[in-house]
Amino acid sequence: MPSDPLNVAVMGATGAVGGVMLQILEERDFPIASLKLLASSRSAGKTIAFKGEPHAVEELTEDSFEGIDLVLSSAGGSISKRFLPAAVKAGAVCIDNTSAFRMDDQVPLVVPEVNPHAAFNHKGIVANPNCSTIQMVAALKPLHDAARVKRVVVSTFQGVSGAGTQASEEAKEQIREALDGKEPSLRGKFVRPIAFNCIPQISHSVGSNPFGLDGYTDEETKMTRETVKIMEDENVKVTATTVRVPVLVGHSESINVETEKPLTAEQARELLERAPGVTVMDDPAKNRYPTAIDAAGRDDVFVGRIREDASADNCLNMWVVADNLRKGAALNAVQIAELLFTGSK
Amino acid sequence: MPSDPLNVAVMGATGAVGGVMLQILEERDFPIASLKLLASSRSAGKTIAFKGEPHAVEELTEDSFEGIDLVLSSAGGSISKRFLPAAVKAGAVCIDNTSAFRMDDQVPLVVPEVNPHAAFNHKGIVANPNCSTIQMVAALKPLHDAARVKRVVVSTFQGVSGAGTQASEEAKEQIREALDGKEPSLRGKFVRPIAFNCIPQISHSVGSNPFGLDGYTDEETKMTRETVKIMEDENVKVTATTVRVPVLVGHSESINVETEKPLTAEQARELLERAPGVTVMDDPAKNRYPTAIDAAGRDDVFVGRIREDASADNCLNMWVVADNLRKGAALNAVQIAELLFTGSK
Repeated sequence: MPSDPLNVAVMGATGAVGGVMLQILEERDFPIASLKLLASSRSAGKTIAFKGEPHAVEELTEDSFEGIDLVLSSAGGSISKRFLPAAVKAGAVCIDNTSAFRMDDQVPLVVPEVNPHAAFNHKGIVANPNCSTIQMVAALKPLHDAARVKRVVVSTFQGVSGAGTQASEEAKEQIREALDGKEPSLRGKFVRPIAFNCIPQISHSVGSNPFGLDGYTDEETKMTRETVKIMEDENVKVTATTVRVPVLVGHSESINVETEKPLTAEQARELLERAPGVTVMDDPAKNRYPTAIDAAGRDDVFVGRIREDASADNCLNMWVVADNLRKGAALNAVQIAELLFTGSK
Repeated sequence: MPSDPLNVAVMGATGAVGGVMLQILEERDFPIASLKLLASSRSAGKTIAFKGEPHAVEELTEDSFEGIDLVLSSAGGSISKRFLPAAVKAGAVCIDNTSAFRMDDQVPLVVPEVNPHAAFNHKGIVANPNCSTIQMVAALKPLHDAARVKRVVVSTFQGVSGAGTQASEEAKEQIREALDGKEPSLRGKFVRPIAFNCIPQISHSVGSNPFGLDGYTDEETKMTRETVKIMEDENVKVTATTVRVPVLVGHSESINVETEKPLTAEQARELLERAPGVTVMDDPAKNRYPTAIDAAGRDDVFVGRIREDASADNCLNMWVVADNLRKGAALNAVQIAELLFTGSK
């Protein structure tokens, strides 16, 4: 059931995710009647090409949403909180890539391959999960359906583009400095040097204390809570350690998963091979396993190094990689829009 | 009980670990009567300074060990297998940094802070554990003594210097190429590009299949087996995912540990603060946690982000970082020599 073309607004059009959002809308030939690019007053007036046509970036205000059918928002949590209610009031459906509404009971949190039904239960806003959560649940769901996931111990290796375009630039600058034998200088996007380093702290608010009383960062807590909401099963327990690594695009995850029923590595591989949106790359003898640079620019969630864990019953290890800007953000948001408006996923 | 100065031979003196070995012998004023630097015929004739004096590198042969009291070996497993029997026959005690003899029942595998007594039970060879294992067991031992470690799920973030000097150079070259917008070229030290990437395969033999039938790499299996041998408790189960990251020096480890008796994060912190060779850096609200570049050039094993894991009973997460060339290799070897010869550790 193809939909009539939609009037689409992209909030945060000049950001890292916004740019990929436009690419993906173009690639997938999303049915667009009109496209409005919204950003802060700082970016207003810039021009961005879409399908070969220049589009002027407009300043985002409460009045930006008249006649808009669909808002794709990735301008930061406080911006979403401030402006999405106006968009909903104006009659738009908002797909929000920030954490602002994710844990709101009134807002579905959706990965189309995992809980597509939830999307339709919206009251104007559908939340796009955290990048690290999306790729993890895409790989967990087939195992959960077959054998019930009980517990997940996950450590992440997250690329710097997850912190935005400026973070990627700062990372490259720091690495250039380090290669030249200089001390890498902190320019505001990292709390510690990222050049030739791994930082076990991911938070989008540099400066304030991003650690909870339990010692977990907001990124880690998101993985725990969002997984339960998306999988719709509070018996799925997740403990996470989220780490920023000097990679540009692509998040890798080392996942140890305990299931209620036993699963061999071979069974898990077969389940994942049949799963939508998942590509199994798992033949280590031929050096075949996914890495961040393999996943960059690709749509699927890649899974490899699937192996039984002899340290406990019913446990498997696996290595899950995806493009954090695509499946981890923009693509998943566009897939939700397709689910709601074009009947495909 | 200070020992008489020893006749010391360093095998692999021109390698990454060999260089740090010499630094550490100098820093710690190890009692040396004579120093013999041994390497392959390719490096023979080079000159290396030790305590300000030039020392010529000699070609390693079966006849290199006459009159030698102590051999510090880090020239690769096959070299150790071939030459250490001759060194033992000549009356030397060999501390071997390769994996050649680690799992040999006749050879103690020692981390001086963990199982110092084992060192004295040698028959000429004492093995130095794998870098990733050393820092992990240093952090686990105090918890084991207090609460019995049952199971460990570990993911590593390992610096490229663990693969040798050439690997560090290749990593830097690859990163320079990537920064210049070129495809990073593989020069033989990595099976996949390491520039802006994480490779979930660590093995010292590029080319051959380093994966076991169970799907684990030799590095991962080492962490499982060596931990049991060093902790002298086969009830300690370890499952590992070992990953090479674009870091020069320093290995970081995300460790989830299950104990028989409950331990709060606070109790674990206190135990680790009292532990020899361990420094707790754990005040996340002040951005205080260890990273690879903090640990580089330092002797201790650094532990931070100690927190209770709500996903299972009696589990904690922690982040453990050390200099892989120092505590992970050369320093631990020199500490074993001190234990055996100078009565200190």
